[in-house]
Amino acid sequence: MSAASPLLTAEERARALTDLPGWQVTDDGRALTRELTFNDFTAAFGFMTRVALMAEKMDHHPEWTNVYNRVSISLSSHDAGGLTGRDLELAGAINRLAGG
Amino acid sequence: MSAASPLLTAEERARALTDLPGWQVTDDGRALTRELTFNDFTAAFGFMTRVALMAEKMDHHPEWTNVYNRVSISLSSHDAGGLTGRDLELAGAINRLAGG
Repeated sequence: MSAASPLLTAEERARALTDLPGWQVTDDGRALTRELTFNDFTAAFGFMTRVALMAEKMDHHPEWTNVYNRVSISLSSHDAGGLTGRDLELAGAINRLAGG
Repeated sequence: MSAASPLLTAEERARALTDLPGWQVTDDGRALTRELTFNDFTAAFGFMTRVALMAEKMDHHPEWTNVYNRVSISLSSHDAGGLTGRDLELAGAINRLAGG
């Protein structure tokens, strides 16, 4: 896809993480992950709904798993083959929604 | 938990699956799984929202993963240590919501 954002360098990834509490970069450097725990299912899914609306607006979507009150999120720019600025933007938006 | 439903027998599991198109029993017999694909993210998440409301009403919740237009669902009764009638009920409700 011609519109793919450029991949982040290792240095850019490391620097960005200092602004994204709760997130980790996977060992292969291709994804950002975060685990969140809520009081119950409705709180977890309510959060997911807010993220879903934001993700759709940003046209960048998470890979995520929900088990009752837990939500595991992985972000990557598949068209670019790894992490780009779009993942950092979505991670930041998710943190703001999480109140973190 | 004293209110745990009884585990299904292998025979009950096999019989129930004939009424639940799209679902499979995992090799260990402890969970029902189904993969669904939608046109796009909003269709997938819209479906998840309907399932979430139903699951909360039934007080029985799926383990599920969403990647863009795909939703992978796993049902099990953890308090009972495997499949019970509650999983069959939720699987049936999900199929009705999926229009299947």
